[in-house]
Amino acid sequence: MKFDVLVEVRLRAGISDPQGATIEKALPVLGFESVSGVRAGKAFRLTVEAPDIVEGRLVVEDLCRRLLTNPVIEDSIVTLEAQTDPAKASS
Amino acid sequence: MKFDVLVEVRLRAGISDPQGATIEKALPVLGFESVSGVRAGKAFRLTVEAPDIVEGRLVVEDLCRRLLTNPVIEDSIVTLEAQTDPAKASS
Repeated sequence: MKFDVLVEVRLRAGISDPQGATIEKALPVLGFESVSGVRAGKAFRLTVEAPDIVEGRLVVEDLCRRLLTNPVIEDSIVTLEAQTDPAKASS
Repeated sequence: MKFDVLVEVRLRAGISDPQGATIEKALPVLGFESVSGVRAGKAFRLTVEAPDIVEGRLVVEDLCRRLLTNPVIEDSIVTLEAQTDPAKASS
């Protein structure tokens, strides 16, 4: 069974985020006074093949720890969704 | 009313993704044979203040077009969620 996965990697609270701060400084200039608290992170899309969603999540969480994140400064949010489209599932 | 926003920015289909390709090349070495189709993108977290969720989404989509994405090679997925925690909403 195949799952579409979204991994959101973000800086832990308290870790300085220069990219987010730079975006935030540009907001008033562009007229976005209603936007605040910008934090920049990474997003990975991938496909995992596993017998069930629990196994799939374990594999992706292991991947996060070992490759996608730096656990000292980052944490990750993993979202899995079963592929339902048969054309996609067979590819 | 305040909304917590997640903006996922990803490369359009067909645009080459060297970061994703590099991660994918490392997967078999690390024993992740069940993972494939890695695409790397960006994730932004922010807060928007708006009268309702429709207005909030319009502001964030405008922000995506003008600042967060390069519409030639990227598209964005915007998710809004109303802040429910009163301590958070008043901050």
